[in-house]
Formats: sequence, C-alpha cells, structure tokens
Amino acid sequence: MALHPFDEAIRLLARADGSFDGHTSVAYANMVGPFGGITTAQALQAVLQHPDRLGEPIALTVNFCAPVADGPFQVMAQPVRTNRSTQHWVIDLRQQGQTVMSGTAVTALRRETWGVDEEPMPVCPPPQQVAVPETQAPMEFVKRYEQRFVTGNLPLVWDGQESSSLTQLWVRDMPPRPLDFASLSAIADIFLPRVFVRRSTHVPVGTVSMTVYFHASSAQLVETGTGYLLGQAKAQAFRNGFFDQTSQLWNEAGALLVTTHQIVYFRQ
Amino acid sequence: MALHPFDEAIRLLARADGSFDGHTSVAYANMVGPFGGITTAQALQAVLQHPDRLGEPIALTVNFCAPVADGPFQVMAQPVRTNRSTQHWVIDLRQQGQTVMSGTAVTALRRETWGVDEEPMPVCPPPQQVAVPETQAPMEFVKRYEQRFVTGNLPLVWDGQESSSLTQLWVRDMPPRPLDFASLSAIADIFLPRVFVRRSTHVPVGTVSMTVYFHASSAQLVETGTGYLLGQAKAQAFRNGFFDQTSQLWNEAGALLVTTHQIVYFRQ
Repeated sequence: MALHPFDEAIRLLARADGSFDGHTSVAYANMVGPFGGITTAQALQAVLQHPDRLGEPIALTVNFCAPVADGPFQVMAQPVRTNRSTQHWVIDLRQQGQTVMSGTAVTALRRETWGVDEEPMPVCPPPQQVAVPETQAPMEFVKRYEQRFVTGNLPLVWDGQESSSLTQLWVRDMPPRPLDFASLSAIADIFLPRVFVRRSTHVPVGTVSMTVYFHASSAQLVETGTGYLLGQAKAQAFRNGFFDQTSQLWNEAGALLVTTHQIVYFRQ
Repeated sequence: MALHPFDEAIRLLARADGSFDGHTSVAYANMVGPFGGITTAQALQAVLQHPDRLGEPIALTVNFCAPVADGPFQVMAQPVRTNRSTQHWVIDLRQQGQTVMSGTAVTALRRETWGVDEEPMPVCPPPQQVAVPETQAPMEFVKRYEQRFVTGNLPLVWDGQESSSLTQLWVRDMPPRPLDFASLSAIADIFLPRVFVRRSTHVPVGTVSMTVYFHASSAQLVETGTGYLLGQAKAQAFRNGFFDQTSQLWNEAGALLVTTHQIVYFRQ
C-alpha cells in the first residue's frame, strides 16, 4: 500500500549525530517552496522520532527564519532539559548549513485531571451541510486538505472592502488520514492570511513565528480519527508590517484539540 | 538617583563570549524563585543589548525549563539568521551550566503600513475609578505592580465555585516607569493562573511556555509612558495537567500593544 502523502512528506532518516535527513514534498508545495504547515510537521517529527523523547507534545513554537528551498534539509531536535514529567526541546532545521527554521517544543507525560473547555465550539452547520468551494487556490498543498468554509474564505472579489477577519471552516486531510500530533501541527497552519480576509486585498505575506498548544491527548486523537476538525481563526491587530492570528481546532465531538497563534509579515 | 528596581533587575553584564551575566532580583521574588515575567525580561534584554541586533522585538517565546534558583545566571542570545528586515534569535539562560530557560525571538525593522486593531478594547471604567484591592498576595514581585482589578481577581473565598476565568485589570509598574519592550514582556506574565480564577481552588501551577507578540512600536511605547495598561486574560482549555491563557494589553488610548499566550502546568 502506498504511503499517505503526509507520511511520505514527514519521513525522516536518522543520522549518526542524532539529527535527521528530510526532503521537501512536492505534494505539499506552496506558491514558492513548501506549505509552512508541512515544515512545521517535519520539525515536530524530529522530536516525535527522537529516541529520548518523554511523553506527548504540549507546546511547539517554530520560527520561519528564511524561505525553505525545494530539496533536502537536516533537522536536529535536542532535549535541553528533561524533568520528571516534562521535557524541553530546541529544534534547528537547516538547508546548506544555514538555519531556515528554529523552534522549541515541550513534551510531557500527561495525567488525568479535572478539565473543562472554556472556549465554546462555535455553532456551525455540520460538515456535510457545508459546500466545498467550487474554485480553490492553485497551490498543490491546498489539494491535500478538504476545506469547507462556513465563513471567511478568500474574497470572491478583491475589492478592498474591509470586513471581519474571522474564518470558520471544517478541515481534514485529503485523502482522509487518522489524526496525529504531526498532522495536527500542520493543520494549525491551514488558515489563510487574515489580511486577505480582512482587507479583500492581495499583499505579500509570510508567517514569521507560530506557536501551537496541544490540548489533545493521544486518546482524543484516536477518537477523532479521520473526522473533520472545526477551525476558527481571527486577527487581533494589524500594525506596521505584522499581524497576528489566533486560532482554535475542535473535533466534531466538540473537544478543543489545539489553540494556536502566529505572527505574519505583510507589506503595504 | 537610584535605579528603578526593574532596571536593576534586568541589568546584564557582557562577557567575552557574547553572553551576559545577570542575577535574580529580590525585588521581583515570587513564592519560590523569581517572578516568571522578570526572567522573561532578562532573556529579552540579552537580545535588546546585543550589539548585532536589527530592529525591534516582534515575537518572543520563552520556555520555563526548570525552577530558577535565587542567584546568578548566564544568558546567551544568538542571531541564527539575519535577513534584510528580520532577525531570528535563539536564547539560552543557564544556571550552574544547565538550561533553565530556552527561547526564541524575532526582531524586525518595522515600516509604517495600513493597520487596524480588530480586537476591541473592552469597555471598562478608567483606572482612577477602579479600586486597588485591600489585600494582595504576599509575594515581593506583587508590590512591583499596581494592579486594579475590574474583574477576575483572586477569589475572596476559595470555595471551589466555578466561574469564567476572565480577568480584566489596569496595571503598571510600581513605582511608575516609562514603558519599554522589556517591561512589556514582564507585564505579559502578570496574569494570575487562570485555574485559580476559574475554579476558586488553589492547586500547584507553573508556566511552561509563553509567547509574546509585540504590536507596539517604539513611538507607541513613548506615548504610553507611565500610563496604565488594560490587561485581559482568559483560558481556552484546561485538560490533563495543562491549561492555556490568552491575553491582551492595551494602553489607555486604546492601542493594542501586546497579544500573548501561555501554557501552564497544573496538578489535580
């Protein structure tokens, strides 16, 4: 059986020095270079595959330091501090010996505790009642995700009309693939640049830094399986060349799996 | 004239290898060890004082890897990638040769662009109309901040009654001090652990990772001066030993200066 394109994309080969060899994925290509979410997943994968890893991912921050070129890369994840139940990682992803992504991660042994989701899942029609858009952006990675927009897709007319930057959508891997931490970290970056939604104006953009908090346990990932996730994203501020996005991902059962934030460069 | 205790606390001495020597501050002591916000500011200060720094802070992530002991520390900020207008930093703060805080930062030359604050400043009475609490927590660092709670102070009765985790408060340095990026990064960590507010139950907690996005320009910091900031914080999810906090800081004129997020360990 052929590997799912996502599994193909995040395949890493261990090197003698503890780092891994990987390669950008044609299947997850963006306009230029790869989709940021797939590079994020590759960085996290270096933690997940590390023989010394303790527990499951809690937090991940990745910094998009420079454009990633199509081709090979090396990624090193180092546990800089290991405690009884938490472990701290520093991540460095390089091409031609130069850092193109830096990052940190926290993994932890999680124990059952009291809990509650305070941020309610927005009331949206179920995925089956939300149409897949008739047209979609031409980048290859877009075909790797089924996206059903409840609100806040790309503007139909780029007329500079200002509106809320809010997006709500159902999303899952295409073809469907059982959810895991790596795919969740990629989907955390699925949201369109808020400036497009807010301004109906196309301007150059690029994510600078993204942080992902994993609220999901392994058991919840298994329960979610190949189901849809409800994603919500909005900006809080646009100012002098940068804006933020604050986002959530729930499963169909309403469990908040991820909260995530990013800061994005824009021009004009 | 004596230095402000905050300036005293973030004083770093350059070492030959490019790192800095610092010392924890008695004035910003927490129950055990220092207030996390002051360690955050010390880490950022290593970037701000670096001779090769390009531009102003855009993003900062710090990971609280291990308890910081009262005493000296060494902090190293390294520019791992410098582009035309952005620069990526890796930060390592050590005690006894072991990492106690890891982090990354992005600085950038900001240009004036279109902008808007999408997250509205909550409607709150002005600081002068909000009382300073009659009692406050006994930690030394609490005395370094004037905090006027509009809502969501520590519960008066720890009766386990559940309520929203929302806090809104006016806050500034005590004594007042003109706002800068370092103090802003410390104030980003001023918010009480959300689990106390949500559950009215005292449980062991500790911040694991915090990310700060700086929307403020230097000019806005100057305009803010020694004025109050309106801070707002709430949790999105509490689950299996960890919860998140998502927070904003506005100045009195209503400009959103910072959006910040953290993930916090809790027990029970």
